Amino acid sequence: MTKSCIKCNEKATYFRKYSGEAHCNKCFSNSIIEKTKKTISKHKMLKYGEKIAVAVSGGKDSLVLLDILNKMSERQGSEICAITIDEGIETYREESISFSRNACNEMGIQQIVLSFEELFNDSLDQIMDIRKDKTTSCTICGTFRRRAIEIGAKKINADVIATGHNLDDTLQTFLMNLFSGDIKRIKQSNHNLEKKDGFDFKRIKPLMEIYEEEIVYYAFVNKIPIQSIDCPHSNESIRTEIRQILVDLEKKHPGIKLNTMRSINKILDNTENISEKQLQKCEICNFPSSDKICSVCKTVNLVSSWKD
Amino acid sequence: MTKSCIKCNEKATYFRKYSGEAHCNKCFSNSIIEKTKKTISKHKMLKYGEKIAVAVSGGKDSLVLLDILNKMSERQGSEICAITIDEGIETYREESISFSRNACNEMGIQQIVLSFEELFNDSLDQIMDIRKDKTTSCTICGTFRRRAIEIGAKKINADVIATGHNLDDTLQTFLMNLFSGDIKRIKQSNHNLEKKDGFDFKRIKPLMEIYEEEIVYYAFVNKIPIQSIDCPHSNESIRTEIRQILVDLEKKHPGIKLNTMRSINKILDNTENISEKQLQKCEICNFPSSDKICSVCKTVNLVSSWKD
Repeated sequence: MTKSCIKCNEKATYFRKYSGEAHCNKCFSNSIIEKTKKTISKHKMLKYGEKIAVAVSGGKDSLVLLDILNKMSERQGSEICAITIDEGIETYREESISFSRNACNEMGIQQIVLSFEELFNDSLDQIMDIRKDKTTSCTICGTFRRRAIEIGAKKINADVIATGHNLDDTLQTFLMNLFSGDIKRIKQSNHNLEKKDGFDFKRIKPLMEIYEEEIVYYAFVNKIPIQSIDCPHSNESIRTEIRQILVDLEKKHPGIKLNTMRSINKILDNTENISEKQLQKCEICNFPSSDKICSVCKTVNLVSSWKD
Repeated sequence: MTKSCIKCNEKATYFRKYSGEAHCNKCFSNSIIEKTKKTISKHKMLKYGEKIAVAVSGGKDSLVLLDILNKMSERQGSEICAITIDEGIETYREESISFSRNACNEMGIQQIVLSFEELFNDSLDQIMDIRKDKTTSCTICGTFRRRAIEIGAKKINADVIATGHNLDDTLQTFLMNLFSGDIKRIKQSNHNLEKKDGFDFKRIKPLMEIYEEEIVYYAFVNKIPIQSIDCPHSNESIRTEIRQILVDLEKKHPGIKLNTMRSINKILDNTENISEKQLQKCEICNFPSSDKICSVCKTVNLVSSWKD
């Protein structure tokens, strides 16, 4: 028997297993927008009129985020700007940058593209070519990308940095940190980090309560392109394992990922006291840092030492 | 090539994968005792001279705990008493009660045996026979057993209740609560719960940093019997799934369980503010309760209603 959309009675195309809801494409899209609004409001992510720097890699999550924030922007009184980072990963990043450019053009959104090469001297491909120790590509890339986005956000004088992390990403990251004993990182991943001394931006993850598979379906329904290539440097095998564990658990216990997210939110909201080093200014770049030299400058120095 | 014990150079019999240590049986046993002492001291679980009610089911964990606490007792100045609960589970509990009786006799430790039937009118077998809803055996058993142990500890005027939960138990319980969104239970599982208004005992888990497989090996080396039968009412299928997930992860990443335990400890130590209802006294039994009627009395009433 064909199911009907619970909202408009049209033929349903998407069945949300954990809630039992059936949706047509249009009502499914609206449900994702409404869920995102709810996340934003529940976690007080945005105030009226704030300027948002959206980190847009051109991957499905960031394009969906841009699409939803753009649809919300008028009512929210927010100004949106896209920050795109070109890590310098041949083929892979070229495709997604072109996706991001098209999306920004269509929506009439200003886009700033910054490259690792201009900011940190070398592209990720170049760095991986000369690497002399076991520092992983994801570590280097993550450190540089975070800073590059901050630099972009500073350029446009943004109040907020929004990233496209979805529910699955957030769970995977939490469990990776939990399993590695890295509680400091757990705390750092707090979605609701308010501006603090030394931090210039509020960081928000408006899609953090949306399942990855629903983002994929939203992209499909809204004709948002999905990258065909995986990052050639990707090496987080433990993330892949944890992703699979969560997929298996969700299959047997629909809704378990959402419940886990709720727990994580409550844990993060209640772990104010986990000792974080006092932030100071990096002696080289002046950015906030927990050490005399920040992790970005340390990495730049490390890469430079590989050239000797 | 045969490995030698890192302590005494005898032939090694146990290889601790996550640390690379090889041990002979005797030095392995000592290492477990030392680890337990370290856990006790690190988490300030015991003060000199405290009276300890050890919850001894007769399962491997509780017998190993009793053995280790007994070996430590002289130096610790502590008095130990065993509290054994007879839930009334045919065959299964009879075997373990006999193990616990033998152990207490051998060590010259006082043992108090209390049964569900005398405390709560019915044995678990009887309750499961007349059950009329979906309340699980583990829920009923857990609620009653916790109270029964408290009653035993009160009888002997103990300061502390010690239970044999090992590292695997603690991880499984944390992840079960995490996956179910039940953050209140996460906080309740805090190992280091100090006496509070309404709580009469400090609850400690001295084996919470010892791998289950090491407890099994300690039992084997020290001729502590291991139960041959599983509980016939056991129904925590999600626990079995999570146990397997952790076993698989540990196989690929030796030490991951220990790291996770470290994270959990830090999370628990830093989640003081998770709202817990103010405790009051149960109107029926006078025990501390978060509601007017405590969960034990509610369960007794529920079981009684099944008899109508």
